[in-house]
Amino acid sequence: MKKNLRVGLLLDELTSNPCRLYESRYFCSKYDIAKSSLSEDIKLVNEILHENGSGRIESIQGVGGGIRYIPGISDEGIRELQAELIEALSDTSRMLGGKYLYTSDIMFDGSNVSRIGRIFAQRFYGLGADYVVTVETKGIPIAAQTAFMLGLPLVVIRREAKYSEGSTVSINYFSGTNERIQKMSISKRAVEHGRKAIIIDDFMRGGGSLKGIQDILGEFDVETIAIGVALESRLPERKKVSNYTSIIIIDEIDEENKKISLSANEGLFE
Amino acid sequence: MKKNLRVGLLLDELTSNPCRLYESRYFCSKYDIAKSSLSEDIKLVNEILHENGSGRIESIQGVGGGIRYIPGISDEGIRELQAELIEALSDTSRMLGGKYLYTSDIMFDGSNVSRIGRIFAQRFYGLGADYVVTVETKGIPIAAQTAFMLGLPLVVIRREAKYSEGSTVSINYFSGTNERIQKMSISKRAVEHGRKAIIIDDFMRGGGSLKGIQDILGEFDVETIAIGVALESRLPERKKVSNYTSIIIIDEIDEENKKISLSANEGLFE
Repeated sequence: MKKNLRVGLLLDELTSNPCRLYESRYFCSKYDIAKSSLSEDIKLVNEILHENGSGRIESIQGVGGGIRYIPGISDEGIRELQAELIEALSDTSRMLGGKYLYTSDIMFDGSNVSRIGRIFAQRFYGLGADYVVTVETKGIPIAAQTAFMLGLPLVVIRREAKYSEGSTVSINYFSGTNERIQKMSISKRAVEHGRKAIIIDDFMRGGGSLKGIQDILGEFDVETIAIGVALESRLPERKKVSNYTSIIIIDEIDEENKKISLSANEGLFE
Repeated sequence: MKKNLRVGLLLDELTSNPCRLYESRYFCSKYDIAKSSLSEDIKLVNEILHENGSGRIESIQGVGGGIRYIPGISDEGIRELQAELIEALSDTSRMLGGKYLYTSDIMFDGSNVSRIGRIFAQRFYGLGADYVVTVETKGIPIAAQTAFMLGLPLVVIRREAKYSEGSTVSINYFSGTNERIQKMSISKRAVEHGRKAIIIDDFMRGGGSLKGIQDILGEFDVETIAIGVALESRLPERKKVSNYTSIIIIDEIDEENKKISLSANEGLFE
């Protein structure tokens, strides 16, 4: 088999299965090549990924080792996404009143979802998380994408306990935004005690909803080790959670003068 | 630049952006190559995709033409997924009573989601759809993946009208499963009149919910041109919608004898 065909086959299989650990001998026997040839091929795959800024191949030596693809995105790719999101969000026809913006089309756009998933996967890889958790509905695509890219199961917390979720645990929490008590509910089968979770959501204002997710996970001794949100409201400055990463900051929604002020989160490049 | 590096770069960029149409001159200028060299490279990319069964590159000649990646999956890959799903669904601890099965872990598994998305994208590509539509919650990951792979916007119909959706249209529909009236609601901004939609959902019993989606789309003169569901219940035999494709058929949930009978949908190979 020609080398450039083989490198392409490796690249395609690895990138189609993010974070899956392949034993070296799997590819050696599949393509009937020596381990040294595979190493050379993987070096080329890594050059390709580096050049495109789309991640890297991690090689783990020794027993239980192997190779796997860690998705990524270049700083340039992040800046491009931020600029596109800021342009889309600046459209004042998105204003719904009460400081709400219509964002469903943005959160359900495949190219946005894919790139947001790459940003969080690149950032949170290596933390040792067991789950990616979100609460329905608008954050599900980006959470599902992040989970896929980290090779982790997705857990979706529901607003109401559903029969199809089996036994559930529910909590009430205070949403500062609506100034009212809200409910969320998680299937007892969804998580195991003592594990670690990354929370992903589309939007954070005061962080009440994220705090609610942390609390309901706490009922299972599941620790929240990172939080990623696509959009963050500048106000209130005091959030109910810390240790979160956002992509875009909504500085102000000025309904009187019809102006939406937005910033790119520069913290992503530190 | 070495040819095998270039072929890999092309492969990575094209497969990361399914169904995006690239003008040939974009790559010719990016890699400083003649159109004939690009054609040779694309031929190799196609060989790689064909060998891995992961799709193909479509070349469109003439003005407004270019190249794009159409995702796919091999028959062998489909059979492997079907076997895995049948094994997972056969686990009788999934029985919740009332003929319900716990399936959230299956529907939220990234590898399942990715392969189900490929099956529907491969099957429904070329129908001229404008949207992929689902109703919250469990079908969102597979619908989002199908949408991404077809390069189409995802539309999520809500169970309740939300303030953040702006003006909405709601309908009531009859769910035969629960023998009760249910509601669904869609943002007026989500779809344009006269377009075409593919509906994707995780599960169909009688098809009441899918019929509801068809009807609410009908309020916008949006025609449903295809339906894909991951799991289909054999009974009732008479469904409220036709023209659907499933991946797995649940033949029987025998609660007395603790047995779940399942089949692979052979219709996928016709």
